[in-house]
Amino acid sequence: MGMQSIALSGVSERRRGLAQEKMTENGVFSRDKVLTIDTMNPTVKNVEYAVRGPIVQRAIQIEKELREGVKKPFTEVIKANIGDAHAMGQQPITFFRQVLALCSYPELLNENMFPEDAKNRARRILQACGGGSVGAYSASQGIDCVRQDVARYIERRDGGVPCDPDNVYLTTGASDGIVTMLKLLVCGEGASRTGVMISIPQYPLYSAALAELGAVQVNYYLNEEKCWSMDLSELERSLAEARKHCNPKALCIINPGNPTGQVQSRQCIEDVIRFAAKERLFLMADEVYQDNVYAEGCQFHSFKKVLFELGPEYSDNVELASFHSTSKCYMGECGFRGGYMEVINMDPEVQAQLSKLVSVRLCPPVPGQALMDLVVNSPQPGEPSHTTFMKERTATLSLLAEKAKLTEQILNTVPGITCNPVQGAMYSFPNISLPEKSIKEAKALGQAPDMFYCMKLLEETGICLVPGSGFGQKDGTYHFRMTILPPTDKLKILLAKVKEFHQKFTQQYS
Amino acid sequence: MGMQSIALSGVSERRRGLAQEKMTENGVFSRDKVLTIDTMNPTVKNVEYAVRGPIVQRAIQIEKELREGVKKPFTEVIKANIGDAHAMGQQPITFFRQVLALCSYPELLNENMFPEDAKNRARRILQACGGGSVGAYSASQGIDCVRQDVARYIERRDGGVPCDPDNVYLTTGASDGIVTMLKLLVCGEGASRTGVMISIPQYPLYSAALAELGAVQVNYYLNEEKCWSMDLSELERSLAEARKHCNPKALCIINPGNPTGQVQSRQCIEDVIRFAAKERLFLMADEVYQDNVYAEGCQFHSFKKVLFELGPEYSDNVELASFHSTSKCYMGECGFRGGYMEVINMDPEVQAQLSKLVSVRLCPPVPGQALMDLVVNSPQPGEPSHTTFMKERTATLSLLAEKAKLTEQILNTVPGITCNPVQGAMYSFPNISLPEKSIKEAKALGQAPDMFYCMKLLEETGICLVPGSGFGQKDGTYHFRMTILPPTDKLKILLAKVKEFHQKFTQQYS
Repeated sequence: MGMQSIALSGVSERRRGLAQEKMTENGVFSRDKVLTIDTMNPTVKNVEYAVRGPIVQRAIQIEKELREGVKKPFTEVIKANIGDAHAMGQQPITFFRQVLALCSYPELLNENMFPEDAKNRARRILQACGGGSVGAYSASQGIDCVRQDVARYIERRDGGVPCDPDNVYLTTGASDGIVTMLKLLVCGEGASRTGVMISIPQYPLYSAALAELGAVQVNYYLNEEKCWSMDLSELERSLAEARKHCNPKALCIINPGNPTGQVQSRQCIEDVIRFAAKERLFLMADEVYQDNVYAEGCQFHSFKKVLFELGPEYSDNVELASFHSTSKCYMGECGFRGGYMEVINMDPEVQAQLSKLVSVRLCPPVPGQALMDLVVNSPQPGEPSHTTFMKERTATLSLLAEKAKLTEQILNTVPGITCNPVQGAMYSFPNISLPEKSIKEAKALGQAPDMFYCMKLLEETGICLVPGSGFGQKDGTYHFRMTILPPTDKLKILLAKVKEFHQKFTQQYS
Repeated sequence: MGMQSIALSGVSERRRGLAQEKMTENGVFSRDKVLTIDTMNPTVKNVEYAVRGPIVQRAIQIEKELREGVKKPFTEVIKANIGDAHAMGQQPITFFRQVLALCSYPELLNENMFPEDAKNRARRILQACGGGSVGAYSASQGIDCVRQDVARYIERRDGGVPCDPDNVYLTTGASDGIVTMLKLLVCGEGASRTGVMISIPQYPLYSAALAELGAVQVNYYLNEEKCWSMDLSELERSLAEARKHCNPKALCIINPGNPTGQVQSRQCIEDVIRFAAKERLFLMADEVYQDNVYAEGCQFHSFKKVLFELGPEYSDNVELASFHSTSKCYMGECGFRGGYMEVINMDPEVQAQLSKLVSVRLCPPVPGQALMDLVVNSPQPGEPSHTTFMKERTATLSLLAEKAKLTEQILNTVPGITCNPVQGAMYSFPNISLPEKSIKEAKALGQAPDMFYCMKLLEETGICLVPGSGFGQKDGTYHFRMTILPPTDKLKILLAKVKEFHQKFTQQYS
């Protein structure tokens, strides 16, 4: 060890008043780290994200063990933990991928293997890109013509309610938009810390973002007895409670619901908007499953449309941000990280701050922007790709509707499992009765009882679900979230295995 | 106005003790916003990002005016404000785009128009994707085989210094990695707030991220007289100063430099590493311009390589995160938002937190990951695409080298402009002498004098540069940053116009 290290050691000890170096086996001094679990940002430590949490880590490990020839009571891991449609075999929409290939390698525009409408879309997107390349940065808010197409899509969807492209921001998936909006909203310390109301059960992006931003998570419970609907009285209770210790400023809704698969009624949305207006809450509507509606009598109503139908008292006042994505619906293109958000009634000064904030990260991925454009500007009747597009879209959505029904039906045949209809989105979130003994055993292990259950399910059957505790649930109730995405044959196997496991588990711990 | 609004008004007034509603022209009550400039997150307000700031907003406006036929003393805006190579006409690498097209639309694998090596790369990437689709989520840390390829690339680059793929995280551009690392590092309040040392001039992503995170920006000045090198004594001064009021934990270096275009010497990097070791600072090395080195006698040395060459006292101890991207070098693929970071000597508990943190945002865009793979696993001698690839790569880099030289030479012919050699990266950051009268006039307008200068340049010539004040500079000195990216003919026009403008400006204000 040279002079340098001796000097160094001296400095360190003086500074921190304790020895920071120790001799390792090979004679090298090893120092304490600068960045340790004790010195790191504590808000990051509070972040949890169950959808990719310990159970998924273990599933990946088990897959590795299987590949290495380790004997298990099953031959493959079936993952129903995440809404990752393509990974579960859903096929991409041909038209979308043709246009993306054309945008990536414009030489293909000279080939006659692509339909004219695909070429036209690609040309239009490329023309809007710097230097005609998807490799150029776009405007930070997103490519102009894509935002215009989004605006027209929203207008069509909402029966003509106007949409200004200047209020549309393209994003890196919906998550990016949601986190950006929360970032604008959150501030304060102690009793004036910003509170954000989120449903319980919730999608854990919300709790994770709020933890990271140091905001107060204000829980309101969905009504499981009424198919996970929102109760006005529960919103009131939650808000009144929260006002005692923080400053609630925003209310988040996921509709169709994740993890709960419900589709909120028009009446319910109206109630929520009136509540937000009365209580002065900024509304955040996560509507990424807007095309995933399966149950008869259910229909998607955008918060924006209902807001405008309530008249200018509301449509001129209530602040709303709504979110969409390329990752769900019939597209399932998660890997492209495309999305948009629309802001309504945002204070112009705040909106200028939003525009500045998004500029720091330069721009959302341009291929994802291109894909978002195709979603909102899909082949029209008369265009060469229209028939195939409609066939593919309908096939995917019908299959999802079938699997939603199948999941609900089979789960409800299991004694001790109660499953609400999967009205929309891609998930069921059944209630599971757990025997007292299993709850005690889980607690002795320091595990949530439904984590204990799901971990055992994984080890014994290879099925990967996410415990309800990762999304939040009423105390004393237990759930799991499973996606309806596996191919029908695998979904049937999965459901049969869950049924068998649940019966065995109940017996074992009774 | 119905009962609802009356009740609402009453509630609001009670709560805030002031009237929140006013009657608008059409008889509708308009309320104060929930989210206003006064209630929003104050850290966001502190964020500034000059590269896309007011001068660029104005440039976009001028372009629009030109399109609308407004008469100007010029016919086009030349943008040299941002390192956006493709927007400036740089052509993408054919091989990269072929593989990306194949990945987007795998039907093309059946066509014989693509070389076999492109097809092989595409097959390998698709095999590593869920369901064989780039539309599936990847692992949050990035696709396994891409991380392995990155690790092998780093090992080759650094003469065999080992790289563990588990320490490689794929990112959404380098910006995402940098912000993520800062997020882990930053905490504390008052005198124990985390300080992060950044060079001045700096790339404003750093100041923006630190502002947003509420960290203390600790400035160290690059030595303009010595071609923007880092001085140990300046680092020491800066650190000693900072320790009086915060807790400096990290040191950021951009090499090759942005906005300053220097390439740090091996000796300098060694000094910085020894300094970081002695002073217990976490090192962050922004090395996105690692292939952009033009000046004779200059060479890129990665911080990691030098760290390992200093021996185990350093390589076993100093914590380092380094960053790379698909956006710069000969690729210039900014729109794909691809990148990676490698962490060295990170505390395992912290690394687990890092892995958890990145999982919340699901995954970096998969097309960007694919592109990153191609960059680190480019065509090899003997493969069909190798010759074309090398030709394209060399042509792009030679052209950049030429333009770097040209920029320096012409700028240095202007009395009152002094320009360091553009040794690397994509920018020159010349010193401009501004007459006292112009400084006074700027200050009277509340503008930074170099903002005043650049705004006038834009209005009179259509040339869009970024004022030095957006990057930071020594008090009383003025600069602008210009990219060397415009095509040679336009670059010459740009430089001639700058020369003419500077002379006129100097005369006008003398």
